[in-house]
Amino acid sequence: MEGFAFDRDTRLAPAADGPAGAPAAPASSFGLEVSDRWSGLGGVNGGFMLATCVAAMGAVLPFPDPIVVSGMFLRPGNAGPAVVTAERIRAGRTTAFGQARLAQGGKEVLRATAAFSDLAAVTTEYAGMAPPKLPDPGDCDRAPGLPGITLAARFEYRTAQAPGWLAGQPSGDPSAEFWMRFADGRPADTRTLPLIVDAAAPAVLELGASSTTIELTVHVRARPAPGWLACRVTTRYVSGGYHEEDFEAWDSAGVLVAQSRQLGLVRR
Amino acid sequence: MEGFAFDRDTRLAPAADGPAGAPAAPASSFGLEVSDRWSGLGGVNGGFMLATCVAAMGAVLPFPDPIVVSGMFLRPGNAGPAVVTAERIRAGRTTAFGQARLAQGGKEVLRATAAFSDLAAVTTEYAGMAPPKLPDPGDCDRAPGLPGITLAARFEYRTAQAPGWLAGQPSGDPSAEFWMRFADGRPADTRTLPLIVDAAAPAVLELGASSTTIELTVHVRARPAPGWLACRVTTRYVSGGYHEEDFEAWDSAGVLVAQSRQLGLVRR
Repeated sequence: MEGFAFDRDTRLAPAADGPAGAPAAPASSFGLEVSDRWSGLGGVNGGFMLATCVAAMGAVLPFPDPIVVSGMFLRPGNAGPAVVTAERIRAGRTTAFGQARLAQGGKEVLRATAAFSDLAAVTTEYAGMAPPKLPDPGDCDRAPGLPGITLAARFEYRTAQAPGWLAGQPSGDPSAEFWMRFADGRPADTRTLPLIVDAAAPAVLELGASSTTIELTVHVRARPAPGWLACRVTTRYVSGGYHEEDFEAWDSAGVLVAQSRQLGLVRR
Repeated sequence: MEGFAFDRDTRLAPAADGPAGAPAAPASSFGLEVSDRWSGLGGVNGGFMLATCVAAMGAVLPFPDPIVVSGMFLRPGNAGPAVVTAERIRAGRTTAFGQARLAQGGKEVLRATAAFSDLAAVTTEYAGMAPPKLPDPGDCDRAPGLPGITLAARFEYRTAQAPGWLAGQPSGDPSAEFWMRFADGRPADTRTLPLIVDAAAPAVLELGASSTTIELTVHVRARPAPGWLACRVTTRYVSGGYHEEDFEAWDSAGVLVAQSRQLGLVRR
């Protein structure tokens, strides 16, 4: 989709090693200018970098939708030039697997693997959990901008009550429920969900800590219906300086569209 | 540890491309004879194959403990010869990253990535969840052997009550809590946990279905204390033929030692 920030900033330049206009070869390299519009305090957002790898894998795989994506975050990423290399590992009848590497200045920043398939027709067969119960977005608090966190300006967030950490009073309960959508009206789809699950405030802020992502796995479960996403984020266990963070995104039809878990390093 | 089935069956032959006895090079290939002792109905257990990749990555990385491992299951694995290739991606001061590929007959079966660190001293800093409450193992039901599933003979399982699926009457609730340990007395450690989280019955059996793993991510949170592991497995959402499965393993000191999530394809 053209005209939206996400699409402009994940646009991959034609592979330097292939003819312009040709379909991407099973192993292809793309140029990428990493924008400064998707950054947190620790550098470029991990979910955004993962979404660029998903775009690159999508170019070498024969199915439209990522169904599971895993990324290992090797180094902080920065605004500026990058090279994204994608590899088709295996393409089967219903599922294809790929790998991508994002490198800057000759150093690998992110290694990602993914399975792709076609999520055109998904019905819910069993639901042992339900979407967050939230007041209508219009009756919710609007999250303020955050200095230095350009990523936060790319989304609108709505919460039933302002989070404790925002007022400098962490609640001690590392969980939150909120509405979320792109600020520029870009509809969520399966290619944007790996970013969205990492684009809200870390749950451990309510423990007075922050976080650096080591690994992020995203299950994309369905193509989102138009509208707000109802989201839930929670951390249940912090030990040895590490924490997990689980994220769920539910679409306006009440369907679970993404489920993610990351392992993060606690920063105090 | 010698003398245990796990260690005999994950022993890697010296790299064909390196001198015998030398430390493994940053990129090394190892021979592996995949035993028929770790199989389910659909071939060799995914967690077992992932554990062989963890062993190979451990040989090329400078830290002892996997802290997060992700595997993409490309094809079924079978008993017989395999080659496991491991690559050191990056070794930092406290964390190192690696990748491994397991191939059989020239075809890649599993691609795994991992981060390793040192979990020698782990304390729990926040616990928003607790271990399963189970009767003492001696007061529990002993799970029977399962024809054709050699994996089940490698472990002892104890449940407060026999699962519904075992009697042909799935309960409709895809979750379970149970004790688990190696049948031959092998203590659990951080290298065995990626197997253990995938070595119990799939939760979707209680929905009258079975499962094929597409991707499995394991967070290893601590080195287990000796004794039984208290485990919890649950599936919360089935849609489009896919389900997630979450697994937790808690050691005898009440510490969370592993947390995993997999994306599986439902088989009816």
